[in-house]
Amino acid sequence: MKLRNVLRKIALLFFIGTFAALALAQAKSPDPLPSWNEGPVKQSILSFVRKVTDKSGPTYVAPKDRIATFDQDGTTWVEHPLYTQAMFALDRVHELAPKHPEWKTEPPFKAILGNDREAMAKFTDADWGKIIGVTHSGMTIEAFRKMSQEWLARARHPRFKRPYTELIYQPMLEVMQYLRTNGFKTYIVTGFGQEFVRAYGEQVYGVAPEQVVGSSFATKYEYQDGKPVLMRLPKVFFNDNFAGKAIGINLFIGKRPLAAFGNSTGDRQMLEYTGAGGGARLMMMVLHDDGKREYAYGPAQGLPDTRVGTFTQALCDQAKKQGWVVISMKNDWNKIFAWE
Amino acid sequence: MKLRNVLRKIALLFFIGTFAALALAQAKSPDPLPSWNEGPVKQSILSFVRKVTDKSGPTYVAPKDRIATFDQDGTTWVEHPLYTQAMFALDRVHELAPKHPEWKTEPPFKAILGNDREAMAKFTDADWGKIIGVTHSGMTIEAFRKMSQEWLARARHPRFKRPYTELIYQPMLEVMQYLRTNGFKTYIVTGFGQEFVRAYGEQVYGVAPEQVVGSSFATKYEYQDGKPVLMRLPKVFFNDNFAGKAIGINLFIGKRPLAAFGNSTGDRQMLEYTGAGGGARLMMMVLHDDGKREYAYGPAQGLPDTRVGTFTQALCDQAKKQGWVVISMKNDWNKIFAWE
Repeated sequence: MKLRNVLRKIALLFFIGTFAALALAQAKSPDPLPSWNEGPVKQSILSFVRKVTDKSGPTYVAPKDRIATFDQDGTTWVEHPLYTQAMFALDRVHELAPKHPEWKTEPPFKAILGNDREAMAKFTDADWGKIIGVTHSGMTIEAFRKMSQEWLARARHPRFKRPYTELIYQPMLEVMQYLRTNGFKTYIVTGFGQEFVRAYGEQVYGVAPEQVVGSSFATKYEYQDGKPVLMRLPKVFFNDNFAGKAIGINLFIGKRPLAAFGNSTGDRQMLEYTGAGGGARLMMMVLHDDGKREYAYGPAQGLPDTRVGTFTQALCDQAKKQGWVVISMKNDWNKIFAWE
Repeated sequence: MKLRNVLRKIALLFFIGTFAALALAQAKSPDPLPSWNEGPVKQSILSFVRKVTDKSGPTYVAPKDRIATFDQDGTTWVEHPLYTQAMFALDRVHELAPKHPEWKTEPPFKAILGNDREAMAKFTDADWGKIIGVTHSGMTIEAFRKMSQEWLARARHPRFKRPYTELIYQPMLEVMQYLRTNGFKTYIVTGFGQEFVRAYGEQVYGVAPEQVVGSSFATKYEYQDGKPVLMRLPKVFFNDNFAGKAIGINLFIGKRPLAAFGNSTGDRQMLEYTGAGGGARLMMMVLHDDGKREYAYGPAQGLPDTRVGTFTQALCDQAKKQGWVVISMKNDWNKIFAWE
């Protein structure tokens, strides 16, 4: 065989190899968002990612500044009939009750121990403050995370009869993964406890402890058997909700997000703050309009009113005005949970 | 030419290419810490990194958990005769003075405006609180970062006559880079302002805003011309010093560091907290014993006493007892600044 022929063969093999590799790559990454129905909502995500990753475009953003923030309850997992961490707190009250005989007659604990649903539905923020205070403090950070993990392993959602960590919205997991594949850092920004989410965030969302922004209790540095530990105190240090979400984002991340995802009034400022940046931005709100597969509540768009994850009509109007995308669970998601 | 000969030639070229690449790689990464003199201190760094990155060893740590925290003032840059951010605050007092005629007679501002060094040397923490309060608040986060950057561009160190950002310790930059090359996330954990360090951290240290843990003022979410902004309030939100460093590390990172670097009493708890973890850990303290090339202060080891970056003998004794490595600037660093 002549050299020319050999070189031709090599060139041909190279060509075939390249073609095969390209075909394979295409086959491997068909639709990054398979649980999303086709339509303008899904397109808004794809189009946003194209805009910030297209190096030749005017809205390109360097990977180091690609930040996306996700509210948790009602945005990445189920929050009805009650926030998961509130469920955890109620269970902890039952566990701790033997050590607190005074709770039998003392509100709000009396209502919890007596399973008085009517009274519990009327709990004020101050009541919840007391409940969270006694159930979430008095232990080290490590002990609290372990306790949270153990509870999550055994607790079951009253309707779905599954662990809460299986009630993650598959479409949102796909968005998180899709954004990370495109160089984004994804953060959970929750009004609930930072340490609670850190107990499972990496496993459930692929979000590392340093990428969880949330509310927190003060901690105290002290020594146990000569070893330093951080003890949780029954004292709120930071409230990461409403304006606190924008404040928390700056405090913990120090950069303005390019994309933010929420579902209730507590997320308004996070989305406003995100939208106030220049260039391409993506602000999305999950609307719970699927009572069949999940829950239906607003009161936006005439949906039933709720105290858990309220999405008001005013917020819905603001979303429209400011170009935020409202996700209809019913119409935009062909699958809600991975196990469906 | 026969096919066999062609293949031989290809194999030979491949061999030469591989050899050249390997030689180049070796030539490219000779000593990751060239500014460190040979000896047990330098070896402690190299040995620590080997231990946590050796997959077959008992102290291997996955990259996601490789966290290293660095104090800033006196550890990664010069802090004498006065902390850089205090210098910034003093300059700001002069700038703001025309708007505050009352400062001419009001302590501690009077002493600053009159350049009364004796009075300034006696400033209490409360005095500094007042000074930092008025000079570091009342503007948005963005305005404050810009103001910090502009000051750093024009300010000069009184002795070295160079920008403060050129007074970074080259050996510590090498350690940071070496750790990052080995999969570590490097954090600045400073008793000074988180936002101040964020203004230059990426450029100077290669440390992104989300990897700066520091003291902070409260911020307020408000609207300017309909756009949301975060305004800095004259109210301390978090004091990231002493026990605050361990608390801040958990708050912002949520993981225990594998390595921590400090130089003064404010770093004690950070090093203790780091050392209390299992496996391989590296705790290092910079001792300023080089009055010729930098400054000499302690009062550890009989060095002159100071109120700026105090390293007590008690801390030095604790370091010895707990296996922390004390770095002698004089003996362990053959170069202190990049421009030497």
